[in-house]
Amino acid sequence: MNLILLKEDDFVSPNHVQLSDRRFMHIRDIHQAESNSTLKVGLINGLIGTATVTHIQSTSITLQIQLNQTPPPPLPVTLLLALPRPKMLKRILQTASTMGVKEIYLINSYRVDKSYWSTPLLAETAIYEQLILGLEQAVDTHLPKVYLRKRFKPFVEDELPSLSQDSRKLVAHPYNTTQCPSSELTKTVLVVGPEGGFIPYEIEKLEAAGFTSFHIGQRILRVETAIPALLSRLFPIL
Amino acid sequence: MNLILLKEDDFVSPNHVQLSDRRFMHIRDIHQAESNSTLKVGLINGLIGTATVTHIQSTSITLQIQLNQTPPPPLPVTLLLALPRPKMLKRILQTASTMGVKEIYLINSYRVDKSYWSTPLLAETAIYEQLILGLEQAVDTHLPKVYLRKRFKPFVEDELPSLSQDSRKLVAHPYNTTQCPSSELTKTVLVVGPEGGFIPYEIEKLEAAGFTSFHIGQRILRVETAIPALLSRLFPIL
Repeated sequence: MNLILLKEDDFVSPNHVQLSDRRFMHIRDIHQAESNSTLKVGLINGLIGTATVTHIQSTSITLQIQLNQTPPPPLPVTLLLALPRPKMLKRILQTASTMGVKEIYLINSYRVDKSYWSTPLLAETAIYEQLILGLEQAVDTHLPKVYLRKRFKPFVEDELPSLSQDSRKLVAHPYNTTQCPSSELTKTVLVVGPEGGFIPYEIEKLEAAGFTSFHIGQRILRVETAIPALLSRLFPIL
Repeated sequence: MNLILLKEDDFVSPNHVQLSDRRFMHIRDIHQAESNSTLKVGLINGLIGTATVTHIQSTSITLQIQLNQTPPPPLPVTLLLALPRPKMLKRILQTASTMGVKEIYLINSYRVDKSYWSTPLLAETAIYEQLILGLEQAVDTHLPKVYLRKRFKPFVEDELPSLSQDSRKLVAHPYNTTQCPSSELTKTVLVVGPEGGFIPYEIEKLEAAGFTSFHIGQRILRVETAIPALLSRLFPIL
């Protein structure tokens, strides 16, 4: 937790918050904060700043808050990701959130196991938890949005064209021979397939929607490795 | 397992291997191989090729092997990594192995918890297991070498100069203001610090050894995210 993230309803006065959940425990046990200790804080979807500890009680802590810095800029990317298996999903949501992705579509694909769509990790609160962990790591406040799209064809045909208008349209596809496009701070829609890759039909549908498939090397990466590697390659800053 | 990795002692004749361990189970249960099925195989530190199933017994499988392709080229990098906590160590070794790193030094740093050095995951067999998983993922055969260096100062003063001779000398340090150097297929020694970063003394020692510190953006990445992001940024191919 490189940053303590605050919600509007943590505020007990315009400049004070009271925390009693895992953030309280973290501040008490990991930071070992005392009265007048200062901590880095941020308001979800708002500014970053400093908190000064005013009271430590047995079950809560009160902080005086001053918010005055802007969070890091987002990556200009919309990430379309074939739903990964649950264990990976958690880490991938965290990683994408840490790296500054603000729009994530979890989509279906032939090689996505149907059972993945019923994991409790897709509950709104479970997704929120991973995104927050990612922001805390990155020292960022802007919460990514995550959308679930359980049907590939209607999504690609009906929604993707307007969603990807005016964007670089890219599909990472290790079985393709086109090398990675240049690193640019350009609005981009990046599609990443499932373990085992998209099937030819899916690549055809994406190409019909204007997407170019490319690879970043001969090696097959796990999705959780491919995402940082791709984002780092496609954008000059993180 | 995108590749079945073979060892010299799996061979029962010049062109046949017999497998009875997790590779046998994987071929039987995941590939659901039958007689005459073909599989991608590679010899550790050797060539890649094709296996044809000749017999499936109840506790083992016999494959006829033809090896004729070279594995992907390695990354020209030596990775010096402050020993991560055990849970991360497994994934990081896998990731580095997948991405083509062939020389890994696990080094000490002020912010490495002493207890990390006594994890059973540092046993030679435990490290080997993770490296193999990484190679199986990447479809590579060249086993990385992993060295443990429990003392920072003697390593940096006595061993690092000759080890980094004729190489780009880089330390990833998110608290630095120098931007990432260009992507080049150049012999490189890349140093990655612990969670929380190297302390100033350690950065000074590395700089005294000719290393330049740089960052890849404003965001603080977990080590397991930073490594694919760094390798992908520093080298034009993976």
